[in-house]
Order: sequence, then structure tokens, then C-alpha cells
Amino acid sequence: MNPIIDVLKSHRSIRQFTDQPIDQALFAEIIMSGQAAASSNFLQGVTIIRVTDRAKRAQLRQLSGNQPYVESAAEFLVMCADLNRAAQCCDLHDKQATTGFTEQFILATVDTALAAQNICVAAESAGLGICYIGAVRNHPDQVSELLNLPDHVYPVFGLCLGWPDQAPEVKPRLPLALMLHENAYPSDIDRAQIEAYDAVMVDYYKTRTDNKKTAGWSEQMSGLLSREARPHMLEFLRARGFMQK
Amino acid sequence: MNPIIDVLKSHRSIRQFTDQPIDQALFAEIIMSGQAAASSNFLQGVTIIRVTDRAKRAQLRQLSGNQPYVESAAEFLVMCADLNRAAQCCDLHDKQATTGFTEQFILATVDTALAAQNICVAAESAGLGICYIGAVRNHPDQVSELLNLPDHVYPVFGLCLGWPDQAPEVKPRLPLALMLHENAYPSDIDRAQIEAYDAVMVDYYKTRTDNKKTAGWSEQMSGLLSREARPHMLEFLRARGFMQK
Repeated sequence: MNPIIDVLKSHRSIRQFTDQPIDQALFAEIIMSGQAAASSNFLQGVTIIRVTDRAKRAQLRQLSGNQPYVESAAEFLVMCADLNRAAQCCDLHDKQATTGFTEQFILATVDTALAAQNICVAAESAGLGICYIGAVRNHPDQVSELLNLPDHVYPVFGLCLGWPDQAPEVKPRLPLALMLHENAYPSDIDRAQIEAYDAVMVDYYKTRTDNKKTAGWSEQMSGLLSREARPHMLEFLRARGFMQK
Repeated sequence: MNPIIDVLKSHRSIRQFTDQPIDQALFAEIIMSGQAAASSNFLQGVTIIRVTDRAKRAQLRQLSGNQPYVESAAEFLVMCADLNRAAQCCDLHDKQATTGFTEQFILATVDTALAAQNICVAAESAGLGICYIGAVRNHPDQVSELLNLPDHVYPVFGLCLGWPDQAPEVKPRLPLALMLHENAYPSDIDRAQIEAYDAVMVDYYKTRTDNKKTAGWSEQMSGLLSREARPHMLEFLRARGFMQK
């Protein structure tokens, strides 16, 4: 369709990188691309911690399920949802900050995700590879301590950026009929579509180069949504001043 | 730097559109670009409700702070975080779904935001304009009812897409020094940088074409974070099965 849409549609996570660093001018452009994303109420509720310290990288790797690319990627960014910076503006204008609303948590989380996705697209447009690291939420308290995150800031995910040293296949996505609906959500889920997609995914896993799996998508989802999911998150977020109400 | 980064850095919200529709082949490419974004655990936790029904559009406009472009944009998408589709897969594999974890809420919300940002970039790459509509969270219960959203699905934001009939200026973003930090979050916020940015924003508002304002960024933020923010959100989300724990 056009070269930008081609870049978007060819995304796959990269988990193996060369040793080559990222040129600093390019890095700055990538970060500024992130900043250029939309932001609700112009909150700009994202803070990026760029981790260059080798010891901290090694610790973050351990805290994030021991994923080696957290340490080996040219750059590792911890993308934080940040209400602290804007809350501090209340002091500057003699107002009392109130940061405990769930709505504000959503604002900052969405701002962070939009900025991150722009960073990924900018990086991929230059030939870099990226990988989101949700596992920074495995031990968000320790990650926060390591990076000196204050209250009203939390690590949403990490981002590995670097020059790819692998060329994995693009994963087939859900059929449009299962995720795009006109005017209303359907009353029943279309099981035939799910089964057809399961077959596509089983075939994909069979033929792809790395990390072969045998389960279709619905079986994977049934595993994902029937087990505990980071049960510490709510308590962690509340302790950090989020989601009081 | 490159044409993609140029597109990313030239984003501004468009709130006035021509009557021209979006070609359906282009629309499909835009949606598929959204699907191509990364997804944690491959949940693909986003559902898009494309609202073509004129009466529903008019209602959504009223429910979203009466913003006219909700009605007038060529396309209006309600971007929903969706755990329902994946939870239904538990039935297919004789498992018990558990969808009340805050972590799962974050997964689906982030998935939705990443897909949305790809949709915006794809649209803008083709010359279209976009506007995020957070105000679908003003009355999320009524929006959910209107669109037949089941439990474990919530409207995160709307998206207007259309051909721009205005050319607003790009808004200056926070100085990098305030949102990008190396290895640790700073102990103190840099007030001089905030004041410098306030001056930039005051100047921007003075010279821009529409919607002139006089307050700097920190003053706007002190207003935003010292008032109630959609205080119904937590109760709404809990009633819908999210954030039970």
C-alpha cells in the first residue's frame, strides 16, 4: 500500500541482536518520535529510563524472567507511566494534587503505550528490531527501587532496541471477522473462525524456524486466561499511589 | 531522518474533516496495520467497533462531550480492550476463565493502545487525519450498552479518521531532559526546564491558529491533576469484571 504500512505490517519481535550500537542521532530521533504520539489532555504521562549501566541491566534481566536480550540489546528502555511530573506542577501553582483515580492510571498507561509504539515504528523504519518486555512487571517493586521510581510512576514494560541478528517470520493475526465488528459486538463468538485461525497458527508454528509450538491460539489463550496473572499488581499499584479510587 | 520518522513527528490531532470517505481497501490496510502491533502473550486483546450507523454516531457524539467530529469524521472506531474473546477460549478447552486480575486489565489496555497507535500511523501515512476520543469514558456504561459490549470488554477510547480539512501546527513536546533519564529517575524535578517549557507553550498558544490559550503546560497540568478524573471508572470496570483483584 505504502512503505510505512509495509513497515507496520512486517513487525515481529526480535530477541537476538548484533553488538552494533545505535547511532546517537538516530536514537534521539526515535525518542522524539515517541514523544510525538498523541497524549490525553497533553499530560505526556510517560517517562523513559534508558538503562546503560551494565550492572543494572544484569539485574533487570534477572528481574524480568532472565531474558538474555534485556542485557544484550544495544538499548534497553524502561517505559514508565508517570503522574508524578504533572502532579509536581500542582506545587508550582499552589494546588493540591490528586493522583489516585483509576482514570488517571489509564491516561498515563495509554500515553506510555502510544509513545512506545511510535518508538517501535521509528526504530523498525530504520531497520532496527524491537522487543517489548512485559516481564518488568514480574517484580515491579524491585524494578522501581532499582530505577529510583517515585510514587505515581510505574514500569509498564521494557523495550529492547538493537540491530537484528535473526529474521523471524511474521505471525498471522486473528481474522478480521473476529476483531472488527460493525456497530455492535456480536452476541456469540464465531467458533468456526476461531477453529480456522487455530489451524493457521498450528501450521505457522510447525513451519517457523524457532520456538516451535503445537497448540493453536485458542488453546494458548485458554492456558493464559485460566491461570494467575501477576497477582501482586493491584497491591503494588495501590502502594505506589495509583488506583485508590 | 527518514519519511516514516517524518510522519511520526508531524502528528497533530485533526478535528475538522472533509466529506470524502475512506477507500475501503485503504481502510482494511489501516486496520491490518493495527493488528500487526505487538501483543503480550499474543492475547490480541483488542476489539474494534466500527460505527457506521448514523443514529449511533449521533448518540456517541452526545455521550462523548458533544464533540462534532465524532459524528462528522469519515470513520469512527471505538477501540475496546477485550478479554472476553480469549476467555471464551477457556470454554473451548474445558478450562475455567479467570479475568479479574489487574494485570490482565493492563494487558488488554496496552494491546488496545498499541494497535490504535499503529492505526493512527498507517492513517497518517496515507494523508488522513486522526483524533483520539478519550471522552468515550465519560459514560462508559452507556457506550457499552449502545455497542452491546459484554463483560470483560471496555471502551478505552474512540478514534476519528478522515481527510483533514484543517492544518493545525504541531505542538511542542516536553524537553527530552524532563522525560528521558539515564539509569534512574531524578530525585528532583528540574523546575528551570519546566519554566522554559511553559514559556515555549505560552508562545505556541499565542501564535497558533485555533483555540488560543494563555496557560503554560505546568499550569494546565496543575488544573488537570487537582480535579476529579472520571470518578466512575473504577466502579464501572469492576462491574464489568475487570480489576477484581
